Amino acid sequence: MTVYLVGAGPGDPELLTVRGARLLAAAEVVVVDRLVDRRVLGHIRPEAVVIDVGKTAHDGTSSQQQATINELLVEHGRAGTLVVRLKGGDPYLFGRGAEEHDALVAAGINVEVVPGVTSALAVPALAGIPATVRGVASSVTVVAGHSADDAGDKWAHLANADGTLVLLMAVASRGRIAERLLEAGLSPSTPVAAIERGTTPHERRVASTLAELGELDLVAPAVIVIGTVAERLAPMRSGRADASTNASPAH
Amino acid sequence: MTVYLVGAGPGDPELLTVRGARLLAAAEVVVVDRLVDRRVLGHIRPEAVVIDVGKTAHDGTSSQQQATINELLVEHGRAGTLVVRLKGGDPYLFGRGAEEHDALVAAGINVEVVPGVTSALAVPALAGIPATVRGVASSVTVVAGHSADDAGDKWAHLANADGTLVLLMAVASRGRIAERLLEAGLSPSTPVAAIERGTTPHERRVASTLAELGELDLVAPAVIVIGTVAERLAPMRSGRADASTNASPAH
Repeated sequence: MTVYLVGAGPGDPELLTVRGARLLAAAEVVVVDRLVDRRVLGHIRPEAVVIDVGKTAHDGTSSQQQATINELLVEHGRAGTLVVRLKGGDPYLFGRGAEEHDALVAAGINVEVVPGVTSALAVPALAGIPATVRGVASSVTVVAGHSADDAGDKWAHLANADGTLVLLMAVASRGRIAERLLEAGLSPSTPVAAIERGTTPHERRVASTLAELGELDLVAPAVIVIGTVAERLAPMRSGRADASTNASPAH
Repeated sequence: MTVYLVGAGPGDPELLTVRGARLLAAAEVVVVDRLVDRRVLGHIRPEAVVIDVGKTAHDGTSSQQQATINELLVEHGRAGTLVVRLKGGDPYLFGRGAEEHDALVAAGINVEVVPGVTSALAVPALAGIPATVRGVASSVTVVAGHSADDAGDKWAHLANADGTLVLLMAVASRGRIAERLLEAGLSPSTPVAAIERGTTPHERRVASTLAELGELDLVAPAVIVIGTVAERLAPMRSGRADASTNASPAH
């Protein structure tokens, strides 16, 4: 039997792939973590067993938690049921998909990866920001905030690679990352766009600059774009809820 | 009326998004370029008008060709038909989507972007290569081969940013790019994986090193991955056609 590592996309259930939607509709067991938008679960049939493994997404997961998830996948994979492991965005971009793949293969279980639309590109795109624009940015780097304190001059090189930077899971470390980029010579006026809870009804967009990034009022999860293309951040469309009216839903 | 800029994904029609498939099924006019896998067109209803704008994808398009496409989109958008502009991969990653968006907005036509699964991440993923692996690569940069000869030290910085590099549209310039990365200190033994025609029945996978990249026998389109994660390139699955058995389909 095969365990399917399926990318759930950025949140909107219409941005799941056709193959991902078909597999979810057929799955007997779905193992899901908290970064997956609940609306995506609408593709699952009512008889399926849904196992929520909690706030485990991306590299915030402890190794212990990850080991438990790996064991769970192996156990259900061995039982011969159709198992979908549903992961926010794409399973192979900061999704720990590789670790789950390797644990399954080591246990003799077949694995198939079903790529998803990554939030790193789709959340900015839906907010008006292309990752690349001819003559403006000829590369894009996606980097995780937990590497803010890595030794070496990685951030200095990223500051000077002359492309768009997209930070994921960087709300907590955004001040330290901004400092490292500024120290490496990136201009304080470099455009920054932050998009909280992209593609959800609670999406919030903030236009800023690198100088101000550390002081921005931001709540995770957010995608942060640094570079000239960030100037293109579009206002929220009217008719969609925005954060200011939804911040206190109980009121 | 709205013109939809839709990402077609890497080739497999099952990797189109649910929204993309729905829009294609409803479209009256579909404007498509040659990089889009023909199998994806199976989502289009028979009565729709399909306009093939030729080999125009990505930044290989001349400005003149692009201007003609922009005019075509404006013309059909104005006519009030449901227009889908279908682009290989994702429309906002080297897809010139931004230019088409801007031309439509300037003409007073509403535009909606529907992100797609990008070939840059999905083609490696389906060949066994995650863009990032904890402890191995904490960032990924996607860069277009036509910037091989850019002035400045962009390539030196990319060589030293300690992440995965994914090259698109770089078959012609791969030798020059390899030289620049080697000059900047990247090891000649750095793993390289090249995947020709990913997700198609003619897919071909080649494992190599940075030292050998310039001399590899490669045919466009190909996705080239440089970095430790490239070691994970998997052999083609049995049961799927591989390049060696399909190179001469007439035999």
